[in-house]
Amino acid sequence: MVMDKLFSFESLQVFTRNIFKHIGCSDAEATLATEVLLNADLRGIDSHGIARLSGYVRLWEAKRVNATPNVRVVHESPSTAVVDGDSGLGLVVAPKAMEIAIAKARTAGTGWVAVKNSNHFGIAGHHAMMALPHDMIGIAMTNASPLVAPTFSVERLLGTNPIAVAIPADKQPPFVADFATTTAANGKLEILQRKNLNAPMGWVQTKDGKPSTDPNETKSGGALIPLGSDREHGSHKGYCLGAWVDIFSAVLSGANYGPWVPPFVAFLSPPSDPVGEGIGHFFGAMRIDAFRPAAEFKQHMDNWINCFRSAKPIEGQERVLIPGDPEREITAQRLAEGIPLNPKVVEDLQLLSAKFGIAF
Amino acid sequence: MVMDKLFSFESLQVFTRNIFKHIGCSDAEATLATEVLLNADLRGIDSHGIARLSGYVRLWEAKRVNATPNVRVVHESPSTAVVDGDSGLGLVVAPKAMEIAIAKARTAGTGWVAVKNSNHFGIAGHHAMMALPHDMIGIAMTNASPLVAPTFSVERLLGTNPIAVAIPADKQPPFVADFATTTAANGKLEILQRKNLNAPMGWVQTKDGKPSTDPNETKSGGALIPLGSDREHGSHKGYCLGAWVDIFSAVLSGANYGPWVPPFVAFLSPPSDPVGEGIGHFFGAMRIDAFRPAAEFKQHMDNWINCFRSAKPIEGQERVLIPGDPEREITAQRLAEGIPLNPKVVEDLQLLSAKFGIAF
Repeated sequence: MVMDKLFSFESLQVFTRNIFKHIGCSDAEATLATEVLLNADLRGIDSHGIARLSGYVRLWEAKRVNATPNVRVVHESPSTAVVDGDSGLGLVVAPKAMEIAIAKARTAGTGWVAVKNSNHFGIAGHHAMMALPHDMIGIAMTNASPLVAPTFSVERLLGTNPIAVAIPADKQPPFVADFATTTAANGKLEILQRKNLNAPMGWVQTKDGKPSTDPNETKSGGALIPLGSDREHGSHKGYCLGAWVDIFSAVLSGANYGPWVPPFVAFLSPPSDPVGEGIGHFFGAMRIDAFRPAAEFKQHMDNWINCFRSAKPIEGQERVLIPGDPEREITAQRLAEGIPLNPKVVEDLQLLSAKFGIAF
Repeated sequence: MVMDKLFSFESLQVFTRNIFKHIGCSDAEATLATEVLLNADLRGIDSHGIARLSGYVRLWEAKRVNATPNVRVVHESPSTAVVDGDSGLGLVVAPKAMEIAIAKARTAGTGWVAVKNSNHFGIAGHHAMMALPHDMIGIAMTNASPLVAPTFSVERLLGTNPIAVAIPADKQPPFVADFATTTAANGKLEILQRKNLNAPMGWVQTKDGKPSTDPNETKSGGALIPLGSDREHGSHKGYCLGAWVDIFSAVLSGANYGPWVPPFVAFLSPPSDPVGEGIGHFFGAMRIDAFRPAAEFKQHMDNWINCFRSAKPIEGQERVLIPGDPEREITAQRLAEGIPLNPKVVEDLQLLSAKFGIAF
């Protein structure tokens, strides 16, 4: 087996920023996009990090990503806004939209921003976590190209549509949940594909809706399954969650929803009959002290976290986790030891390096 | 097998209202509590309807429910409020809090209300749906007494913590999702208990955290399992959802959270070391036209709903459902034909009738 190679965070940062600058991003936006993209690698969500860099470039080459977008508010109320991302990188549009949500929360108590005309925004958790230094709770969600079949259906009508919620604590690290609303994220299937391993039952179905363990099903018309795996185990609830994310992200904003969401890859064309503009996101920021004094809240969060973290584990399990624990531990390790990249990803980045004459 | 008996909605309405008046509720609040409680029976969520009436009465007898609460805002910002339920019936406190969220949304675009010092509030869907006639999206969630073990734990630290989201459409009926954040709601286990049937694997675990099919496990220290059933199928995501509901409902409001949430039944005492007041809820209302014109949004919701409802079903499945479809169909049927009540529930209501001298 070919081993992953380790790269320092800084080296990946310099390279990524140079690539974004090469396609025409301003200094500031190249830095912002790099920060968002590489936060996925730092947090161990390898499928959403630098592995996607060449994909973003191909979308730019296909003129489906605008490197100099005019990201602007097109509708607003005291606590809400709709943002037009002007086909920009989601890595740039999303944090700008989240800043608007935070600014709204400062004056109105909460801020809620729906975004249209955007692209893939990296990991939802990054944007939700932007609220934390402001003593706010952050929420981020996005729709995505259709890979998921609603319960009882053979058709792929939803994306993996992740939700992230970040909640500040006092002495404890924050609570950060960030998850696809499917049984398993697509990145988990990609890992199995690379390793030639089967998926557990309940993750995917064939194009006829039959249970399957083949991680390649989505390549031949099969689908991912909503969280819950089957009706008896609550897949209709996962379907509700995915639908909720789709509607908040796209029907509220004026983006494409359901099967009309454009694909993230340049070799697949967007639907010829769009119902909106680009893909959609939805962000929220809630000022803690719009509810109760922040110090009091954060002390109770510490108590909540301590209670759950010290809960008795099932025999054979090491410990009970708080959402965000695994990612935080990976970040510390990768900042110290480097970020492991799959040989195929390295090869892909080397091609990009050669093509643009940017050192890697 | 003893059959369920049918009762007209109106007869249950008169009886329930008289019971609430008997325990001291005002005319208006008895009517409100009745509307909320029986909406569960109308929507087919039998575990949350009139079957609970005698339980509410016992909590009142134990002085844990205040029939004449002073429900009031104790903290607010333009888009938020914290409501103290004054130990009132959740059936009264919750709709009052949702009204406040709706009023906030009218001026600020959105309204978000966290509630402390409340009790069981019936079905979450009822409160979320209150937003619909105002062309708003409604959200409702509540924490509940601890029956659910976080992933990897043997301890019961969360309730079934439901979430409801109601979204208006135009010609189509609204999208109404309302679900416990566990694999199966506790009401489903109660049905299996009554019928002496086993539960599917993945719904419950023993007190040692071992898989089990015994629907009575929670009576001997076992636990319900978060949506996802096990780690491999995403139970950590269901745990995140349940935790999110707990924190929004109780840590934001100042209610009890986690294992400190007081039990819903009078024969179990609340913890002696509360970390807050009563149980907590969280409500949201978002004005559609704080994002885009309501007519435009609702036409796109019709398109969304039509697309999903007409999706091709898996062979052997009849159709793809929109969240809210099954409940709406049950409501129409029960209004026409009557509400079926289990013989044990009827017996319980007859005892209540005899005790208070109120005709049933």
